[in-house]
Amino acid sequence: MTAMNQQILLASRPSGFPTESDFRLVETATPSPGPGEFSARVIYLSVDPYMRGRMSPARSYAAPVEIGQVMVGGAIGQVVESTHPQFRPGEFVVGMFGWQQYAVSDGKGVRKVDPGVAPLSVWLGVLGITGLTAYFGLLDICDPQPGETVVVSGAAGAVGSIVGQIARIKGCRVVGIAGADAKVEWLLDELGFDAAFNYKTVTNYYAMLLELCPRGIDVYFDNVGGALTDAVLRLITVHARISICGQISQYNLEKPEMHPRWLSLLIVKRAKVQGFLITDYWPRFDQGIRELGQWLKEGKLQHREQFVDGIENAPAAFLGMLRGDNTGKQLVKISEP
Amino acid sequence: MTAMNQQILLASRPSGFPTESDFRLVETATPSPGPGEFSARVIYLSVDPYMRGRMSPARSYAAPVEIGQVMVGGAIGQVVESTHPQFRPGEFVVGMFGWQQYAVSDGKGVRKVDPGVAPLSVWLGVLGITGLTAYFGLLDICDPQPGETVVVSGAAGAVGSIVGQIARIKGCRVVGIAGADAKVEWLLDELGFDAAFNYKTVTNYYAMLLELCPRGIDVYFDNVGGALTDAVLRLITVHARISICGQISQYNLEKPEMHPRWLSLLIVKRAKVQGFLITDYWPRFDQGIRELGQWLKEGKLQHREQFVDGIENAPAAFLGMLRGDNTGKQLVKISEP
Repeated sequence: MTAMNQQILLASRPSGFPTESDFRLVETATPSPGPGEFSARVIYLSVDPYMRGRMSPARSYAAPVEIGQVMVGGAIGQVVESTHPQFRPGEFVVGMFGWQQYAVSDGKGVRKVDPGVAPLSVWLGVLGITGLTAYFGLLDICDPQPGETVVVSGAAGAVGSIVGQIARIKGCRVVGIAGADAKVEWLLDELGFDAAFNYKTVTNYYAMLLELCPRGIDVYFDNVGGALTDAVLRLITVHARISICGQISQYNLEKPEMHPRWLSLLIVKRAKVQGFLITDYWPRFDQGIRELGQWLKEGKLQHREQFVDGIENAPAAFLGMLRGDNTGKQLVKISEP
Repeated sequence: MTAMNQQILLASRPSGFPTESDFRLVETATPSPGPGEFSARVIYLSVDPYMRGRMSPARSYAAPVEIGQVMVGGAIGQVVESTHPQFRPGEFVVGMFGWQQYAVSDGKGVRKVDPGVAPLSVWLGVLGITGLTAYFGLLDICDPQPGETVVVSGAAGAVGSIVGQIARIKGCRVVGIAGADAKVEWLLDELGFDAAFNYKTVTNYYAMLLELCPRGIDVYFDNVGGALTDAVLRLITVHARISICGQISQYNLEKPEMHPRWLSLLIVKRAKVQGFLITDYWPRFDQGIRELGQWLKEGKLQHREQFVDGIENAPAAFLGMLRGDNTGKQLVKISEP
């Protein structure tokens, strides 16, 4: 075991799209757990869109990361030392360990993971926050019914790709919106989406959606926002349900985009728009993991992981994910499993 | 009984705010019911914001009124002749009888009213679509809890004034937004609102709402939309619920208002925005009327009615309601009860 702990700190607050210079790699001493704590060696770090929000000064649902603090992030680790009654050395755990090689935790918000059920990295993906976000954000908010048309933006991303597959399991017709031809092929050929298009090569989103959703859009799972969402709204059916998971098109704007008011539409369509955070579903995580695990075992959920190696490459992996370079789940391998 | 039936037809489609010239008064023969129908003498006509939508060419949730057709509208009537097995001459009924002195109906969407329970006009107000809109739009969509802060726009209107009182019955702190000092006084002095303000004499809606809602806004019942709603959104709490009943500030615009995108806010606050139409609650009307009637009997619901006399004054009453001239429910007396 190394005596040093490499960490990525927030170096500056980006205006607009972040750059690598907004992060700083430092080395500190490997931390030791205090009473009722454990230390963990981080194995995989997840990079996710919400992290962009934490780089901004405004408090949203959580306090921002301060300049000079370790960047927040969910990760898989292995317990090294422990004085915590529930965590023993050698056990694998998932928690908000941050962008670093070693973390100390008091166990709050930490769950044990069973590498016998699925490979470690899957506990950050299908069986982790990613899968749970798809599961509760789709099923709890939208309650999709067989035969309904479900549209997913960011469909080839970590969450979106699972949302579409769950909607298929529920008997829905699923239409994905993604940002590359190769992603569209993946959705159609491997994930069983009924239709999909590359919004970067389509100019009229509305006309394309109208063609792919001739009976209108009953459910929309939104990871992206902006003009894509405007086009979807024009096609929603009566009693449509819209789950707002992310608005990645808006996170790096230097000033807010303007658009025409549209709340009257919600009356005409008696439609619901609801935002959510997966953390609110914590008491129901076991239920979600059980069902996701079952689908995974039955081969009903395909998933793809992309890895970069080494904590020093976490910023680049994060920026690539923000640009949409990844297909499926983007992970950083911090140390050997 | 007169042999003639005065009717108000849609004469032209308004662009922007309607005028009296968009309506035309005609006289036709008094209609006779066919098989399975009844005719009714109209007593009170309700004028409501949704009628503005029906004057526009676009189909929304219902087909528009065509040029030369009788304007749609809910009304109280008394059955004159009937070949319908369920409606007998002399009975009082409420239904979509339109802007006319006599109507023929096949009974669909018609309910009988009991003038022994409440005066006839109340069956268009607290015990009619108005009260039911307030009841289901607040309770079903927002589920207000004791101690929560509820903000109502259009608070001195027919629906808004009942919404605020139901929220008080449920133990909420209620803040009303209205468009005249006299309305604000009525809300505070007679309806028991905890706070209220006149948006026409306040320039900074956000600052005013912040002062009146120091713990944020848990529930918002929106009749108005526009800049008022923007200000409310900035103050919503975690898990806020927003019921979109109307957007009257937007109905007469010649082009849509622009505003900054705000769906990210729904994620941060895990909030819900839902539009509704009272017609969807038809199977539950009896439940609503029962509880509203109970509150009325117990003196827990105050209400105010404004009458104009004569069908020829219906357009002026409607335009006045769109301008916000009314306090409480605006009705047109078409014939003697």
